[in-house]
Amino acid sequence: MTHLTGCVSLNLLNQINSREDLCALDAQQLRLLCDELRQFLVLNVAKTGGHLASNLGVVELTVAIERVFDTSKDRLVFDVGHQSYVHKILTGRREEFSSLRSYGGISGFPKPSESDCDAFVAGHASSAVSTALGMARARTLQNEDYNVIALMGDGAMTGGLAYEGMNDAGESDEPLIVILNDNGMSITPNVGGISKHLSLIRTRPGYFRLKKLFRSVTNVLPGGKAFYRFTYRLKERWKRMLLGSTLFEEMGFEYYGPVDGHNIERLEYMLKLAKECQKPVLLHIITKKGKGYAPAEINPDVFHGIGCFDPESGKPPKYRHLPSFSDTFGKTACALAEENPRVCAISAAMIGGTGLKEFSERFPNRCFDVGIAEGHAVSMAGGLAKQGMLPIVAIYSTFLQRAYDMILQDVSMQNLHVVFAVDRAGLVGEDGETHQGVFDINYLRSIPNMQILCPANQEELEMMLRDAVLKMDGPVAVRYPRGCDGAFRKAADKPVLREGTDITLIGYGTLINNVLDAAKLLEKDGISAEVIKLPSVKPIDMVTIAKSVRKTGHLLVAEDAVCIGCAGKEIAALLRTQKIVVPTRLVNIGDRFVTHGSVDRLYQMLGLDAKSLARKAAEVMRDEE
Amino acid sequence: MTHLTGCVSLNLLNQINSREDLCALDAQQLRLLCDELRQFLVLNVAKTGGHLASNLGVVELTVAIERVFDTSKDRLVFDVGHQSYVHKILTGRREEFSSLRSYGGISGFPKPSESDCDAFVAGHASSAVSTALGMARARTLQNEDYNVIALMGDGAMTGGLAYEGMNDAGESDEPLIVILNDNGMSITPNVGGISKHLSLIRTRPGYFRLKKLFRSVTNVLPGGKAFYRFTYRLKERWKRMLLGSTLFEEMGFEYYGPVDGHNIERLEYMLKLAKECQKPVLLHIITKKGKGYAPAEINPDVFHGIGCFDPESGKPPKYRHLPSFSDTFGKTACALAEENPRVCAISAAMIGGTGLKEFSERFPNRCFDVGIAEGHAVSMAGGLAKQGMLPIVAIYSTFLQRAYDMILQDVSMQNLHVVFAVDRAGLVGEDGETHQGVFDINYLRSIPNMQILCPANQEELEMMLRDAVLKMDGPVAVRYPRGCDGAFRKAADKPVLREGTDITLIGYGTLINNVLDAAKLLEKDGISAEVIKLPSVKPIDMVTIAKSVRKTGHLLVAEDAVCIGCAGKEIAALLRTQKIVVPTRLVNIGDRFVTHGSVDRLYQMLGLDAKSLARKAAEVMRDEE
Repeated sequence: MTHLTGCVSLNLLNQINSREDLCALDAQQLRLLCDELRQFLVLNVAKTGGHLASNLGVVELTVAIERVFDTSKDRLVFDVGHQSYVHKILTGRREEFSSLRSYGGISGFPKPSESDCDAFVAGHASSAVSTALGMARARTLQNEDYNVIALMGDGAMTGGLAYEGMNDAGESDEPLIVILNDNGMSITPNVGGISKHLSLIRTRPGYFRLKKLFRSVTNVLPGGKAFYRFTYRLKERWKRMLLGSTLFEEMGFEYYGPVDGHNIERLEYMLKLAKECQKPVLLHIITKKGKGYAPAEINPDVFHGIGCFDPESGKPPKYRHLPSFSDTFGKTACALAEENPRVCAISAAMIGGTGLKEFSERFPNRCFDVGIAEGHAVSMAGGLAKQGMLPIVAIYSTFLQRAYDMILQDVSMQNLHVVFAVDRAGLVGEDGETHQGVFDINYLRSIPNMQILCPANQEELEMMLRDAVLKMDGPVAVRYPRGCDGAFRKAADKPVLREGTDITLIGYGTLINNVLDAAKLLEKDGISAEVIKLPSVKPIDMVTIAKSVRKTGHLLVAEDAVCIGCAGKEIAALLRTQKIVVPTRLVNIGDRFVTHGSVDRLYQMLGLDAKSLARKAAEVMRDEE
Repeated sequence: MTHLTGCVSLNLLNQINSREDLCALDAQQLRLLCDELRQFLVLNVAKTGGHLASNLGVVELTVAIERVFDTSKDRLVFDVGHQSYVHKILTGRREEFSSLRSYGGISGFPKPSESDCDAFVAGHASSAVSTALGMARARTLQNEDYNVIALMGDGAMTGGLAYEGMNDAGESDEPLIVILNDNGMSITPNVGGISKHLSLIRTRPGYFRLKKLFRSVTNVLPGGKAFYRFTYRLKERWKRMLLGSTLFEEMGFEYYGPVDGHNIERLEYMLKLAKECQKPVLLHIITKKGKGYAPAEINPDVFHGIGCFDPESGKPPKYRHLPSFSDTFGKTACALAEENPRVCAISAAMIGGTGLKEFSERFPNRCFDVGIAEGHAVSMAGGLAKQGMLPIVAIYSTFLQRAYDMILQDVSMQNLHVVFAVDRAGLVGEDGETHQGVFDINYLRSIPNMQILCPANQEELEMMLRDAVLKMDGPVAVRYPRGCDGAFRKAADKPVLREGTDITLIGYGTLINNVLDAAKLLEKDGISAEVIKLPSVKPIDMVTIAKSVRKTGHLLVAEDAVCIGCAGKEIAALLRTQKIVVPTRLVNIGDRFVTHGSVDRLYQMLGLDAKSLARKAAEVMRDEE
């Protein structure tokens, strides 16, 4: 295989069935194992899709961690768990690994219900120091003696939650190891002062060696420990004078690093030191994203989260690349910025993912990538809007949850005109629980002044985004899913997509395709379904709905959203106030988290596929609500 | 007046009717004006209640700001606006100031709809740098030339949002002044590494004087500007060696300070310098909370937010102090911690406000005050719970909004047993829009696995908190209001508080008092109302409700919560699935923000007082839904 270095077999890896097996390996075998792990990762992810580049970067680090720590007892908390593949492979899930991210298979993120070695759920960034600190405190309060390790990327350091956690942890004196896996980028290269700070210390001389020497000398001298304590303050002053202190030291952490993250011996040595240091330690590791697989080293952001690809060439299978909703969003945002100099765009470390790459290149002064800082993105947009700009905030539905309070306080309370491009809304599929965009319908609807548009295809996205930015006022969310549009490709010029006499079926977004298919299935059974597509879930066009339901006498509303605060409940309540009470069925996500799997498989599981919808509509017709 | 220093008259203040008047004063007059402003503040807040200590601390600072900047054009963004009183007094609201915080009167927080001089809404902490940066960017993009100033307390620096904002602002090179008003405490003394860092630089030698000298010398030398630029890097190295860099400099800010925040001339000088510096500047001001009024200087946390008091003695009017819900919570938490060593408590800079003072003193190892960092508080609690502790997170309803995503991801997704003590839920009254706790019913109900208890009085709070901590599992929220309980004092042993035959009235929490009063009013009109008090809004006891509604045939549900996702909608929908369709009225906050005023006045405005509820119930009886 062109791009896979080293041996082709997985002889060594296939023999690793316990931590003991791993600990028994010598230096040469470890290097071989890492090669095999990389091959295993590439070959598997090429088939399943998933997060590749970040996992290739942490092969040596994970091997070192699993050898120095017993992750069935010590607690290894990932910060954004998509770099947990090697950990999973080494902790009993090698053979199931081909089921990665498929329904019923291995999750692409840490999952305590999957293994005791997975310490905590980790899907959103910057939380690991907080949860690890909680664990460390629980350990100390209960007089237990396991180690707690948080493993975070440098991207996660841009999130305010990480800072809150570091601030508390640094002051806590709680033994706790924070490993900063610094690959100089999160998903796209980092931004902000913190990023600069990291580059600075990456190039610093080997301060740690000096410090270790100092400590080892004072340790062997008679009265050395007292001397060490005595000279501590002096040393601190001297250190500051010579080298400046790091941000982490200012926050109360012992700082170790930077360390080459691809040198297992060095990593193990440093991890053991950190383990012995009875206080909060920050271990700064430098890794290369995509390490060992040329296509991923060259294009780490392409191989961040990827679908199937050819492991030899690193190229995706040959089918026509359809432009996605994100592409349409990016193209439209560019057109709007071209037309109106007040239009600007804000992203939270997702310029590529949200489709803003071209925008960022063509309008660099009007494009702000704030890092993994959704709250700041929204509050900053509030300031821009207050002073007359037209900001578009592009954030995935699941990550926008972080900014719920900022949308309320810093945008909607003053009815500021900020447009939220809510990407990856509804089911996202393989990323599972932590990433499904199923709460936005509720949390956005609950915000006064908010209007929510739901394009069902890319043509509609373009039209609605234009209206949202140029014609509407106040806060507006435009909600669209991951991927491309389905069968329903043309923008609807009227809400009633299909006329019928027996039952009214209501849907919005791309789920309308399932609703339309359900109507066709019902037709075969002699049931005439009227299909209404909502262009907006706040406000809701009750005139059209009331007219239709009065005619048909039956109602089904389908939504890819949790049941609390869903549009269906609003529709039923508003019909009620108009004294229209008919057999009704609300089909939605319910009150649950949704696991990983393909979107179609999940629709089936949730009863949101065309067949299930048709069956439920038939039940409503028989008055079985 | 014993505790009021200086003159008794307000001669000078009463003559300040414009910025010109203020700018015309000489140094001696300014000192006199500050004395008068303090008297004015004390005398007014003694009558209206409000935030006193922080405003006494920023008298000189605000005067200096209003003289150096024109806040009708320059944008002064407060971070938590409760220290905006002096600004309001000096920008045209002196005469209306006696209406502070009353319904229809002056708001206790900045409000752009009240005055053009109020740049932005500011109720929740740590957002000012973000919104100010947005404004600064809007200014630059639109080629305008006003100044943007963010004024934040050191407490707000503990919030992750501030860090996100600082990180982006420092890198932006956008001219922007961040004034850090450092009084060494936020509401109670600060915690964390950042706080330590601030104390450290507070005691640093006059670095700024050195720097100014250097700059003035290079400015007068021939070719000095080039020399200045040439030596800039050298100077940076020299500065780091001599003094270490500050955290703020690491983040890309020019750091000026620390400066005595009660010396107007010095403040004006520094503000002018900051104004001239065409990049992000952090101006570090040291002030004393409560300055100039002895009772507030001695007990700044008592005078942080206070009701009416006697200005002479600084004591509250003599009536029996009733223990509040917060007091009961604190007492019960102590008892639980006494009984069970796994119980611990977490507060976000609100140890006093949430009633945890005694807990923090008796169980210091099990009490964690994390600063204004609600997200971290919740994620950390997730870690504690995962490892077997029983964490209680006590946060006001409005501030818990900040942690919505963390409750979802780091607690509920793993069904961890964390108890949320949701204080100040429902209407809080005088603090207005930014502080009303009216969204929690929705955002908590939307979270899978969450259970929500609603004690209607303090006896119930004690019982429910016990159950939540010791008997229940998974995430549990216990929601209770500000202040004391009302007429309904005894814990209910059954959900039906009053039997009736004509209409079912449902309520929860202390609002049940209004519902009971409404039932009495209805009785006079010959309507027999059955009153059901919900102990829990998730899950909801539908058996009791269905039985009652089947009997009465009419339903009214009263809630101090926004309409989206409210319990009433759930009840109506669930009755519907049981084919119980009766005339129904849901009375709630609706889809709006709620202004400031007394809670009773707001209940009237919203139709949630007993009279309105009775009237609406009568309408339902006449089938006027």
